[in-house]
Amino acid sequence: MAQDQDRIRISFEQVRQLAERPLLRCGISREHADAMVDAVSLAEADDAKSHGLYRILGCVEAVRSGKVDPGARPEVVPTSGAVVRIDAKGGFALHPLRVGRPLLAEKAKQFGIAALAVNNCYHFSALWADIEPLAEQGLVALSCTIGAYNVALAGGSTPAFGTNPFAFAFPRGTGRTPFVFDLSSSVVAKGEIELRRRAGESLPPGWAVDSQGAPTTSPEEALKGAILPFGGHKGAALGLMVELLAGPLIGDLRSAEAFTADPKDAGPLRGGYLMLAIDPGHFAGGEGKLDAADAWLTSLAEQHRPARLPGTRRHAARRRSMAEGVLVSRPLHDQLLELC
Amino acid sequence: MAQDQDRIRISFEQVRQLAERPLLRCGISREHADAMVDAVSLAEADDAKSHGLYRILGCVEAVRSGKVDPGARPEVVPTSGAVVRIDAKGGFALHPLRVGRPLLAEKAKQFGIAALAVNNCYHFSALWADIEPLAEQGLVALSCTIGAYNVALAGGSTPAFGTNPFAFAFPRGTGRTPFVFDLSSSVVAKGEIELRRRAGESLPPGWAVDSQGAPTTSPEEALKGAILPFGGHKGAALGLMVELLAGPLIGDLRSAEAFTADPKDAGPLRGGYLMLAIDPGHFAGGEGKLDAADAWLTSLAEQHRPARLPGTRRHAARRRSMAEGVLVSRPLHDQLLELC
Repeated sequence: MAQDQDRIRISFEQVRQLAERPLLRCGISREHADAMVDAVSLAEADDAKSHGLYRILGCVEAVRSGKVDPGARPEVVPTSGAVVRIDAKGGFALHPLRVGRPLLAEKAKQFGIAALAVNNCYHFSALWADIEPLAEQGLVALSCTIGAYNVALAGGSTPAFGTNPFAFAFPRGTGRTPFVFDLSSSVVAKGEIELRRRAGESLPPGWAVDSQGAPTTSPEEALKGAILPFGGHKGAALGLMVELLAGPLIGDLRSAEAFTADPKDAGPLRGGYLMLAIDPGHFAGGEGKLDAADAWLTSLAEQHRPARLPGTRRHAARRRSMAEGVLVSRPLHDQLLELC
Repeated sequence: MAQDQDRIRISFEQVRQLAERPLLRCGISREHADAMVDAVSLAEADDAKSHGLYRILGCVEAVRSGKVDPGARPEVVPTSGAVVRIDAKGGFALHPLRVGRPLLAEKAKQFGIAALAVNNCYHFSALWADIEPLAEQGLVALSCTIGAYNVALAGGSTPAFGTNPFAFAFPRGTGRTPFVFDLSSSVVAKGEIELRRRAGESLPPGWAVDSQGAPTTSPEEALKGAILPFGGHKGAALGLMVELLAGPLIGDLRSAEAFTADPKDAGPLRGGYLMLAIDPGHFAGGEGKLDAADAWLTSLAEQHRPARLPGTRRHAARRRSMAEGVLVSRPLHDQLLELC
């Protein structure tokens, strides 16, 4: 168990236990806890700390405050066609997504394209982990959900929409890690600002404005003000797209409504989640087309160094974590142990 | 007919005639010409000049070079499920899209979500114009296609993918202009760099690198080098997503393949086009949800001035053009007349 001043190296299995115990202890059902442990542990192993173990704290708070039903049983709403609908009944999102994913995959294979909408859920984790399993079985997948109501329009100075993450996954063949990315509509995810606040670090310029609309490098001021959209008006457009897809389209909350309804317990916001799956077999091009795409992505990665493809650093961290153990923040590690 | 040194003001109908004559004259069929005139004239009226009348020049060149079949008859490929496939047979894209759009809308209404793939086509116009008609009939729509092979990865110095535009439209109710945007994966569309080259203007810093990978403000050098993705690695990720969706997923060319195959006649590249349509009626939320979304968008626009929603400037220009006439570049106007 190698360690330094601020971090401790533990096995992936220990990461899972560290995540699991507080969840079960606070009354979260086995089905919900299993899905949550999988997502949080994988993010921690991928060195995507802002979606890793520290999210457990917020989940526990959200149960303690009475906001999230820890034993909610997701209900599959009867539909026809290529749409799967699940009412999460005010529980966490990952278990309903796990229920819906095989139904979505089945419909995508049947119709060529299909959609899964989960309503009334609390999503707190990284979206790439939600869609990677679809790409591993040969489907193309997209997903999105509302995020913290914290992002300004380009040229704006107050929140207009949420951090609204959007994810995409493309299959690379059996046994190959899919091409997958997950991006927030803001310059950075709110979690990155939270992590810097916890670490007492300041923000790079260009990330945020304070509550008066003035540029700020203070995480506290940024959390009271607004984060800027990535890429100016283009990132703002994509943020609004996500807001409309995961909100009004599927009959769920916009991020401002979710924020207003939230008891501010540091847990995730209530809202909707939209996932699409597409089966390449229903389109032109024959069987070799996915192999050709995989070969292209491999050559891209080789020819454009030091530039990287999305997910490269994360997947490298995952291989390292599985081989050598996972480096976890010591204060967080201790805090999670105390929660038990 | 008001005018200044470099521009001439003509009616919208005159814009349409200016677009139509060269197309028919060079042998483009009535069906193709109709769709092309609609798209180019609307972009010109919207003051989206990079997708306006000047595109006619490239289309004429592409027919003269023998690259594009001016009378190609799109073939609807038999499919089951929620996928519409059209083989454009090496013709321009807009006529096949017009053939496919009602089939796509029908399937979206039947299944809740549907996809339209057009293969072997030449697309040269603004994507928002392709999907606005779907949103006008109450559907949510997305579309994408490959663009000029000219965009580097974040941190890269040579082209890795195309300018790859992506568009989204959301209905705002009967008689209301939909929420719609269209963005390239690059900081700017290649057309913007072309326009500056034609005008003898230099580029703002941060748009492009030259063929050696060094930053440049010269349009000529940028066109030999690479344009940068918007928003760094996030824009690059979206560019790669579009490349995979409009290329390998539907069995069509990647932008590098399209570029290699192209005779460099200044016309559009051959490639594929993917459009998705989603029917809000298949999801939760009831009938009032779209009205609520429309009211939210209206309040956003009012509360966040001077920030604007996507499309605001373009739709304002359209209203102005329809009332007062369209300001057209005089050299382009004269050049198009000579083409007849």
